[in-house]
Amino acid sequence: MRAVVYHGPRDVRVEQVPDASVQDAGDVVVRVLRACICGSDLWSYRGYHPDLPSGLRTGHEFLGVVEDAGRDVRALSRGDLVLAPFYYCDGTCEYCRAGLTTSCTGGGGWGGTSDGGQGEAVRVPHADATLVAVPGAAGISDAMLTSLLPLTDVMSTGHHACVSAGVGQGSSVAVIGDGAVGLCAVLAAARLGAERIIAVGHHEDRLEVATLFGATDVVTARGEEAVAAVRELTDGGVQSVCECVGNQSAVDTALGAVRDGGRIGWVGVPADVTGFDMRAAFGRNVSLTGGVAPARDYIPELMADVLAGRLDPSPVLDLPLALDDAADGYRRMDERTAIKVMLTP
Amino acid sequence: MRAVVYHGPRDVRVEQVPDASVQDAGDVVVRVLRACICGSDLWSYRGYHPDLPSGLRTGHEFLGVVEDAGRDVRALSRGDLVLAPFYYCDGTCEYCRAGLTTSCTGGGGWGGTSDGGQGEAVRVPHADATLVAVPGAAGISDAMLTSLLPLTDVMSTGHHACVSAGVGQGSSVAVIGDGAVGLCAVLAAARLGAERIIAVGHHEDRLEVATLFGATDVVTARGEEAVAAVRELTDGGVQSVCECVGNQSAVDTALGAVRDGGRIGWVGVPADVTGFDMRAAFGRNVSLTGGVAPARDYIPELMADVLAGRLDPSPVLDLPLALDDAADGYRRMDERTAIKVMLTP
Repeated sequence: MRAVVYHGPRDVRVEQVPDASVQDAGDVVVRVLRACICGSDLWSYRGYHPDLPSGLRTGHEFLGVVEDAGRDVRALSRGDLVLAPFYYCDGTCEYCRAGLTTSCTGGGGWGGTSDGGQGEAVRVPHADATLVAVPGAAGISDAMLTSLLPLTDVMSTGHHACVSAGVGQGSSVAVIGDGAVGLCAVLAAARLGAERIIAVGHHEDRLEVATLFGATDVVTARGEEAVAAVRELTDGGVQSVCECVGNQSAVDTALGAVRDGGRIGWVGVPADVTGFDMRAAFGRNVSLTGGVAPARDYIPELMADVLAGRLDPSPVLDLPLALDDAADGYRRMDERTAIKVMLTP
Repeated sequence: MRAVVYHGPRDVRVEQVPDASVQDAGDVVVRVLRACICGSDLWSYRGYHPDLPSGLRTGHEFLGVVEDAGRDVRALSRGDLVLAPFYYCDGTCEYCRAGLTTSCTGGGGWGGTSDGGQGEAVRVPHADATLVAVPGAAGISDAMLTSLLPLTDVMSTGHHACVSAGVGQGSSVAVIGDGAVGLCAVLAAARLGAERIIAVGHHEDRLEVATLFGATDVVTARGEEAVAAVRELTDGGVQSVCECVGNQSAVDTALGAVRDGGRIGWVGVPADVTGFDMRAAFGRNVSLTGGVAPARDYIPELMADVLAGRLDPSPVLDLPLALDDAADGYRRMDERTAIKVMLTP
């Protein structure tokens, strides 16, 4: 089968790789219908992990159809349309039972030396616990597939930022970052009933999506100026901040923009973060909450809204490409001329 | 009047200073009955703030009797027994109304160039909002004064650690630090219904107080060994950690001891903290919450329990001294031969 393989900074290629196959009794093989390139894929693409060996598989966001299943698989059947969160989990450990499947003691991630989402098929361990079957799959349109796809990562992650930051009815929230996760956080905030949603970013086209998603205000300034703008708009800062970037500037902006006693829900993978100013946070009782989003736990709730037409994160997928054009997709995201690429094998 | 004055590292003296007096219409003057030396007073005493000028007044924990009142004071009268939180607040700003009086826009602290708590009397600005009158003051015994005194800071701070860490009925909590605040956090956790309370500290006498206060387990190891001990006791870590020290080792121990998805309630003044390992926290969804305790907001609730005999933090005040012996009290706390000194003018 074909899959995207990492060969080094700015060098990803679509190649022939061994077919995905059932290896354990709890596995299924998913034939991928749609996959994505993630902002976090760009860290390795940009050479941030210089020791990464050549030959690793890529991608952790996909949906598809169950093609084969091990003998212990109960909840899924061949032909089921399924959403995969960006990791797998066993469904039985204490963390899975507590709704924090990202901390599953038997879990793991896609790609690397295993199948990645950016390919024709993926072997999924612990399939019953990991995958979410889409009901009424026969009637699902192409457009609906695109609307469901962001739930595998960015929409669940934006939702996690909001949940962590305590966003609810009437909330006042600032979203730092206008990438796919930030935009999804805006959408999640609107879904949760936030009254004031301030999108902070630097790209006009993306901030248009933010407005479409429910942002009531847009701030394009950076650093201290962004902080001042948010504080001005909200008479001293917002109760909730979603930090959706993962660099030091975003963390500092979040701390500056939040009101005393407020919460920063952070979901930006801290790839380039040196610290959190604990002294500043201490005197102001600012909480830092969040982390990697337990997407598996959120997907059912979000999926119900997508299927009912109440939620549509598909505008973040602004560049659909064939799987064979994945390298072009990486390049476009690296250049920031695409928000997020959707790949179709 | 007499008051403690800071002259430099390890040099505090009881001296004659100008009498406290009403200056603004909302002021009262409190004649101090009992005051404390705080662990945080030791930072300057130990020379951690080398630029601190000589001549500053000290102390921020006191209770006493209203002796004089400005013309706008309504809620208090001469002769009222009052508890002072470790700061003053105006009671009208949005933070005061929201229950975060430590962020009061018109507030401030005791000591420095103003009256400190370690003296015969204190001018209290915004007295109606700042002070809490003790009902039935005429019948208050000396022992009850000692039981009430920790509410001005350490008991409220321990309570804040627990509230921030989400401690409630049936909780499993580790308290890092066996100073007065840590011990009070143990007591607060027991009051809030925690089932498992692990006290982490290094002083046998203090850990005896922890056990008296409701600690179910005691860990005397340090660093990685303390983390391992807590994780062993709790099958992988506690849901809630109270960080009651404020140095890097305590922050690291807190992060190591907390279960994935758990909360660190931190109240140790971060005087010697270089950072919080955001990467470790991210993957594990650990929240960092807390800060300076809004004692004014907690005192009424805690006071009701003290007056009813349901709560007694007085064992943390293990060394009562006359105000004139304050320098000896600082020395004893610096040497750690006293947990906390109570001064009587």
